[in-house]
Amino acid sequence: MSASTAFSTPVPNRRLFGPGPCNPYPEAQLALGLPLLGHLDPEFITRMDAVCDQLRRVWGTENARTLPLSATGSAGMEAAFVNTVHPGDVVVVAVNGLFGERMVEVASRHGAEVVRVDHDYGQPVDAERVLSAHPNPQMICAVHAETSTGVVSDIAALGAGKGDALLLADCVTSIGGMEINLDEWGVDLAYAGSQKCLGVPPGLAPFTINDRAFERRVEKPANWYLDLGLLGGYAVGATGGQRTYHHTAPTGMVIALQAGLDRIEAEGLEKVYARHAAAGKMLQDGLEEMGLELFAAEGHRLAQLTTVRVPDGVDAAAVRSFLLDEYDTEIGAGTGEYAQKIWRIGLMGHNATEANVTFILAALKRAIEVAG
Amino acid sequence: MSASTAFSTPVPNRRLFGPGPCNPYPEAQLALGLPLLGHLDPEFITRMDAVCDQLRRVWGTENARTLPLSATGSAGMEAAFVNTVHPGDVVVVAVNGLFGERMVEVASRHGAEVVRVDHDYGQPVDAERVLSAHPNPQMICAVHAETSTGVVSDIAALGAGKGDALLLADCVTSIGGMEINLDEWGVDLAYAGSQKCLGVPPGLAPFTINDRAFERRVEKPANWYLDLGLLGGYAVGATGGQRTYHHTAPTGMVIALQAGLDRIEAEGLEKVYARHAAAGKMLQDGLEEMGLELFAAEGHRLAQLTTVRVPDGVDAAAVRSFLLDEYDTEIGAGTGEYAQKIWRIGLMGHNATEANVTFILAALKRAIEVAG
Repeated sequence: MSASTAFSTPVPNRRLFGPGPCNPYPEAQLALGLPLLGHLDPEFITRMDAVCDQLRRVWGTENARTLPLSATGSAGMEAAFVNTVHPGDVVVVAVNGLFGERMVEVASRHGAEVVRVDHDYGQPVDAERVLSAHPNPQMICAVHAETSTGVVSDIAALGAGKGDALLLADCVTSIGGMEINLDEWGVDLAYAGSQKCLGVPPGLAPFTINDRAFERRVEKPANWYLDLGLLGGYAVGATGGQRTYHHTAPTGMVIALQAGLDRIEAEGLEKVYARHAAAGKMLQDGLEEMGLELFAAEGHRLAQLTTVRVPDGVDAAAVRSFLLDEYDTEIGAGTGEYAQKIWRIGLMGHNATEANVTFILAALKRAIEVAG
Repeated sequence: MSASTAFSTPVPNRRLFGPGPCNPYPEAQLALGLPLLGHLDPEFITRMDAVCDQLRRVWGTENARTLPLSATGSAGMEAAFVNTVHPGDVVVVAVNGLFGERMVEVASRHGAEVVRVDHDYGQPVDAERVLSAHPNPQMICAVHAETSTGVVSDIAALGAGKGDALLLADCVTSIGGMEINLDEWGVDLAYAGSQKCLGVPPGLAPFTINDRAFERRVEKPANWYLDLGLLGGYAVGATGGQRTYHHTAPTGMVIALQAGLDRIEAEGLEKVYARHAAAGKMLQDGLEEMGLELFAAEGHRLAQLTTVRVPDGVDAAAVRSFLLDEYDTEIGAGTGEYAQKIWRIGLMGHNATEANVTFILAALKRAIEVAG
């Protein structure tokens, strides 16, 4: 037996102000205490259909094939590429952070000829450069909200010029925290995660694909678990198809996602987005008032995830440890070469409040003074 | 807005007596109410390491690479094949139910030359036939506890004769409900699910692979999310490697798994297995006393999942609907051609009690009389 068990050691009550997961909406966590349903139970299927509708509204899409995949956000990326990339397809990837890099890696694994369009970290995607990178690509890919740099990019500009290509958008950090209009923007397929601005624990990857992309899909992809052809039978509310057994859905998590989406819709999407915007603006203003320098390019900063440069001479990791150990507060390090150079402060979902901004500004100031 | 929300419609409190998920151990569900931890939090990492140790004990293995994958059980099957099958590898699959069939499908997708060894449904795997099916296969695969038929097979007999081949065992329905000794049996890799006898909601796929299999792995499999080479950095307690970020773990689910495993170890593995055995025996005896015919071959019946033939002239689906609608009780249909021919009654994890047997026998009798 191990020395400690799930309940024998106190679980610290963290403020999750890093790049995600965030503290869930209370309703989403409470829903995990509801009686568990079987994955073929009519009551579960009704709720799954409701969740798919809710996801359509949050994403601004009418895609029939919109559902939560039974895995975390990165599996959404995997599903996007394994289902659509035919060997030798030209895939243009806008790389302006870690998740663009990951798209290059995953698309390559599935046999794509990847044309990467590199940007400086901290900069948004340059649609013109991306669109002119290849005359006739099969797919164009970009991250809407780059979790590694705190930058938002203009996906609609890519949609306007995509031509015959499919457009794939990573919405992991944008969904639930800012307006998204996939159909209007010309996005053909997209994926997200439950654990950021949707305010639900990690474990599900919302996914959507339109008819145009679905018709071009790989007939039998090298992935049974994420085969959208098979998953069609798993969540088919809007396609009118026959519901078939594919795998055991994480039923409890789906109900938690329902509760999180209920919460967001009850507050109102516009109000939720305004709350994120206000908290992010207040945080960013406050950091600059403290003399700190923001990392993401001005005018392209995410409200829900702020990146800020570590001041010269300050020990970035020591500040993070102080916050975690003394204040039960998590903020994120940068990724890769930026690990010691930036901090990432997320105020997502339930956490996007003025009270939390007031706290984190004061706490960071104190941490830099004491531990930095 | 949809008419109903997560909380506006009552969630029925089902007795989940089908093939899974089952009603979780109360401790496992309660753990989902604990404060959420970040996936890089030292406290989470300590708990993840504890869970990996617990899984080793339940599985009877010392494999360093033992961890819960961030998806449901079928993703465990996917991970097993995508990481080990090189194009053209000969993979012998014992097929005695739906999950053997699925192994054929998944192995084929990853380029294996599959040699399938078919058995009548309801019969255990015939080790002699499987071992003589090919002179020198790269892999031999079998399901320990076939969820579709209620049959247990002798995995040790396959291990004893596997030669140079790798041996893969599907332990989705066996883990936590009966003794498993992977190392002693000669199993090289195995996968399971959280939602059956481990008594935890669905969402995680326990996975284990020994050094011998890991050394033969595919260097860069066609699956980034389930690449064991990358996951090595994600849960490395026993390998002593560097912990690296791969994907966001479903942290809440991992703590729920910890609590479920705590519960099982606190009761004692032997007592838990004896409880499952006693409940299954009592159920099977009771069904025969009612004049019903068990489906699985005598001497090879799972205790945790009982298959029983639908009597002639009885409407199988109507009986299931009656139980669900009137008694909030779920039992399973058969799969494929057995959909109307058998019922599957699971008493797994927290549900494996004499009280539940007494209830389900009486309820089934009543349902057959009233609705059948």
